Amino acid sequence: MAHFGDDLFNAVARTGTPVLVGLDPRLASLPAPLQRDIDPRDPSAVAGAFTRFCCEVIDVVAPLVPAVKPQAAFFEQLGPAGMQSLAETVNHAKSRGLLVIMDGKRNDIGSTAAAYADAYLGASSVWGADALTVSPYLGDDSLVPFIDVAKQRGGGVFVLVKTSNPGGGLFQDLVADGSPLYRHVANYVDARAVESLGTHGYGAIGAVAGATYPEQLVELRQVMSHTWILVPGFGSQGGTAQDVAAAFDEQGQGAIVNSSRAIIFAHARPEFKDAYGDAQWQGAVEAATRLMIDQLRSETTAGKLVVAG
Amino acid sequence: MAHFGDDLFNAVARTGTPVLVGLDPRLASLPAPLQRDIDPRDPSAVAGAFTRFCCEVIDVVAPLVPAVKPQAAFFEQLGPAGMQSLAETVNHAKSRGLLVIMDGKRNDIGSTAAAYADAYLGASSVWGADALTVSPYLGDDSLVPFIDVAKQRGGGVFVLVKTSNPGGGLFQDLVADGSPLYRHVANYVDARAVESLGTHGYGAIGAVAGATYPEQLVELRQVMSHTWILVPGFGSQGGTAQDVAAAFDEQGQGAIVNSSRAIIFAHARPEFKDAYGDAQWQGAVEAATRLMIDQLRSETTAGKLVVAG
Repeated sequence: MAHFGDDLFNAVARTGTPVLVGLDPRLASLPAPLQRDIDPRDPSAVAGAFTRFCCEVIDVVAPLVPAVKPQAAFFEQLGPAGMQSLAETVNHAKSRGLLVIMDGKRNDIGSTAAAYADAYLGASSVWGADALTVSPYLGDDSLVPFIDVAKQRGGGVFVLVKTSNPGGGLFQDLVADGSPLYRHVANYVDARAVESLGTHGYGAIGAVAGATYPEQLVELRQVMSHTWILVPGFGSQGGTAQDVAAAFDEQGQGAIVNSSRAIIFAHARPEFKDAYGDAQWQGAVEAATRLMIDQLRSETTAGKLVVAG
Repeated sequence: MAHFGDDLFNAVARTGTPVLVGLDPRLASLPAPLQRDIDPRDPSAVAGAFTRFCCEVIDVVAPLVPAVKPQAAFFEQLGPAGMQSLAETVNHAKSRGLLVIMDGKRNDIGSTAAAYADAYLGASSVWGADALTVSPYLGDDSLVPFIDVAKQRGGGVFVLVKTSNPGGGLFQDLVADGSPLYRHVANYVDARAVESLGTHGYGAIGAVAGATYPEQLVELRQVMSHTWILVPGFGSQGGTAQDVAAAFDEQGQGAIVNSSRAIIFAHARPEFKDAYGDAQWQGAVEAATRLMIDQLRSETTAGKLVVAG
C-alpha cells in the first residue's frame, strides 16, 4: 500500500533535493515561441499552449526534482479546455515519475468535501493527483473526507496553516487561548499526521507554511514534528534559502520548497535572459532549477541529502 | 452599471421570496428516468445527465425564486466534461432570468486569487456567474482581488463567516480579542459591504452564515447591517424557518436561504414520494419549492415581500 509521506521522503532522497516546481501558466509570461499565433480570446488555443509549456517544463525538471505543483486557478480560468489541459499536465508529470501536488485550496462541508476529495484524489479521479492543498476554515469535519480518501488511496493532503502572503496574518495571527489561529490549525494537522504515520516518521497529512515568515517556520517545525511542510514564497515572493532552513529536519527531510515563476519563467529573469532568452527557455528552466537546488544545499540541511555522491 | 446587491434585492422583491435553490447533482440521487442508461464510469454521460437534470430543475424554479447556487464540486468530480456541464447549467439559469451564485469556496494569494476571480466573475469568464463564494483564511489581500473584479463587473462575493457544519466551530469559534474568529471575519466583510453599497442599503460583498446556528445569525445580522447573508443548512441539515428568521431585515430583505437536496431530490422525500415519485419528479421540485416559500413567508419577515398581491 502506497503512503504519500513515504513516497515524498523517497522521492526527495532519490533526487537529493526538496525543490518543488510550481506550474502556474500565464499566457503573457510564456516564452515567445509558445505564445506565437495563440489568440488570447480562444480558451482552447491557450489551453493547448499551457499543455505544451507545462509538459516541456516537466521534461526538463523530471530528472532533477521530486514533485511538481500545478496551480488549478490558471487552468480553471480557461474553462473546460483548461481543465483538460490540467489533466494532461498531471498525466505527463506522473508518466515522468514526478509526484503531483494539486494546488486547489479546496474545501466544503461533509459530502461536498468528499466530492472534491474524489475529484482530485479518488480512485476514478480524472486528475489523479498524489496530494491536494485544502483550506481549514470550515473545521475538522470538512478536512476528514480529504484525509480519509488520501489514506485509502495512499495520497496526501496539505492543509493551509500559515500562508506566505502579507495579509495572511489578518486572521491566521489572531491569538486565542494563548496561541495564534495558525498554531491551532498546526496542532490539528500534526495530530492527523501522527495518525497517518509512514515508515520514515512523517504522516500523509501535511501543512502549508510560507517562506516569508521564517520565525513561524521555526515554531511550526517544532510543533509539527511529524508533518511534511510545503513551503511557498521562495524566490519571487522574497523568501531565501536561509529563511526556509528551519523547515527541514536534521536529515534535510520534512519540507519541500516551492518555486513557480522564478523557475518556469526563468527565461525572463535578468540573470538568465542573456544566456538563454525566449528561444532557449528550457535551458533557463534547468539553470534556475539547478540554482535553487544548489542554494538549498548550501544553506540548509538539504545539503545532507546527497550521500550517494 | 449593474450592482449585485441591488440585483439581488430586486430579484427577491420581484419573486417575493428569498429562496435560493442549490444545484448539487449526484448520479445516484437523480430521478430514475435521468439515471437510466447512464454508465457511472463514463464522465461525459454522467455530465450529460447532470446538465439535463439541472436545466430541468431550473425550468421549474425560474418563475418562483430569485437565484440558484450550483455547487462546483459535483461538476468538478467529472473532470472537464463536468466543467462543461457547469457552464451549460449557468448559461441556462441566466437565460431563464435567474441570478447565479457559484458555490466554489475558492481562494488563494494575490495574482492566483485574481485568476479565480476572472475564472468565475471576469469579463471573459467561461462560467459567467453573478457571484462566487470564497474562503477567508488567507486574509484580506486574498479577498481583495475577488472584491475588485466583482465591483468592476457588477458581481458579488459571499465570504464564509459561520458555516453550517457541526465542526465549523473548531476554528471559527476561537475567541481572540474578546470576539470569535467568525466575528472578526464578519466585521471585515461588513466594512467591504459598506464600501460597495447599492441603492437599497446592501453592498455587493456578502457573507455565508448557517441556518444551524440561529443565535449567531441574530448576532451577525446586527453586526453586518449592510451585508447580504447567504444562509445554508435549511432543510436537510436541520435548519428551520424559525431558525433563519433573524437573518432578514424588517422588510424581509438582506438574506437568501439555500436548500439543495430537499428541493432538487424532493421526489424521494416521504411527503412527496407517493404524489409524484420518480416519473413526476419536476412536480415534486415545484411542490418542495412552494412549501419552502410558504414556510419562510409564514415564519419570517419574508412574508412582507408579497406586497403587489
